[in-house]
Amino acid sequence: MNKIQKPTLEICLTPDAVSFIDLTGKITVIVDIFRATSTIVAGLASGVTHVIPVADIADALHYKTQDYVTAGERNGEKVEGFDIGNSPFEHMAQEFKKIVMTTTNGTQAIEAVKNTAEQVIIGSFLNLRAVTNYLKSQNKDVVIVCAGWKGRFNAEDALFAGALALKLKGDFWWEGDETLFTSHSYTSVKKNLSKILKHSSHYKRLAKKGVSDDMDFCLQIDKFKNVPVLEGDLLVNLEKV
Amino acid sequence: MNKIQKPTLEICLTPDAVSFIDLTGKITVIVDIFRATSTIVAGLASGVTHVIPVADIADALHYKTQDYVTAGERNGEKVEGFDIGNSPFEHMAQEFKKIVMTTTNGTQAIEAVKNTAEQVIIGSFLNLRAVTNYLKSQNKDVVIVCAGWKGRFNAEDALFAGALALKLKGDFWWEGDETLFTSHSYTSVKKNLSKILKHSSHYKRLAKKGVSDDMDFCLQIDKFKNVPVLEGDLLVNLEKV
Repeated sequence: MNKIQKPTLEICLTPDAVSFIDLTGKITVIVDIFRATSTIVAGLASGVTHVIPVADIADALHYKTQDYVTAGERNGEKVEGFDIGNSPFEHMAQEFKKIVMTTTNGTQAIEAVKNTAEQVIIGSFLNLRAVTNYLKSQNKDVVIVCAGWKGRFNAEDALFAGALALKLKGDFWWEGDETLFTSHSYTSVKKNLSKILKHSSHYKRLAKKGVSDDMDFCLQIDKFKNVPVLEGDLLVNLEKV
Repeated sequence: MNKIQKPTLEICLTPDAVSFIDLTGKITVIVDIFRATSTIVAGLASGVTHVIPVADIADALHYKTQDYVTAGERNGEKVEGFDIGNSPFEHMAQEFKKIVMTTTNGTQAIEAVKNTAEQVIIGSFLNLRAVTNYLKSQNKDVVIVCAGWKGRFNAEDALFAGALALKLKGDFWWEGDETLFTSHSYTSVKKNLSKILKHSSHYKRLAKKGVSDDMDFCLQIDKFKNVPVLEGDLLVNLEKV
């Protein structure tokens, strides 16, 4: 029995799981809901022209001499000496055009895939429909990579992966149990997403730092229509999504 | 505000995730629902006196000269030259007293924790209540380690972890998002557990090998009352659970 020709969809619940998958020829969707990928989407939707994601603080500071705004966090707090942190509101201020960014999890996940994947795009609840439409238009295998927290699983990234898997159902062959598991989970909690995620470890960690508004913002669905894509070292909006 | 003194409960969705946790002084519960830990529980409940879990086929064959029954699988199939495979029915045949066992995932997970954890016990749906009661009686931190499939996440182990987390709620502090996520998932699918797991990758993989009866058996809840524990190199039943 021949399978109908469809691309495949897989989910990595942590960046380490990428090591089990050959990313050659595949589109990877990087997910760090609280807050890096939500913030990148929000910034690029609001006047930022490009973001350079870097893994190290030292790399980010190197760009500061080239008129870049330095942005990011470690352990949820703005890096000392940086211009701004990792709040979507800071990145949407429309004062900034060029941002260099490093975060505890999100930019590390980009680093883990950028040399092997065919394309790296940025996903969040804020641009869920736009990402869905783009992936459906490409007819390529897709791997959703959850950034997690310091290499570990987290709930909000996995739930977004489940939401995106459900949107892509029918157009993609689901591979692996992560698709099954996260999609069932998303279905069961989506009506109370914000309430349930208030019990998650990362929400509680960040709420203690006084950024609950950021998290509420990041859980809005389809607020923006842009899809950031990595072109060389730069994250820019895809044209005509 | 002081936390009420309670032990902690964490879940590793894959054996690799153990590297993020200090297991010192903690009880680890090894979970490989399809089929290693279910089969170990069933065998020890049915006349087997002890099981030696080993990581390598060569190690298992070494014991064959010492009157051990060699048991196990690689990629879901009985190892060539072994006496029996990894089916609970084979292990329950009551002909065998001493078994040496190696499997693709379950015995590897035991190997990953046995030198660092204070105690290693064996969990499955078949002995869910017995494991729950034992853990509640110990007042020690607990880590549930899902064996997964070749290092990757799988649905049935994660759902069991969620089921056990729910049983322990109130008596343990849940640490990490895995507890939140797997417990919600278990709650949402428990009425259709068998039906939903028929879509899981490992179920489909094993069903092709004609062992669907094994899987149906492994999803029975509380069929047995024993809790296997690793004592030295041997898995034996805990006394008086």
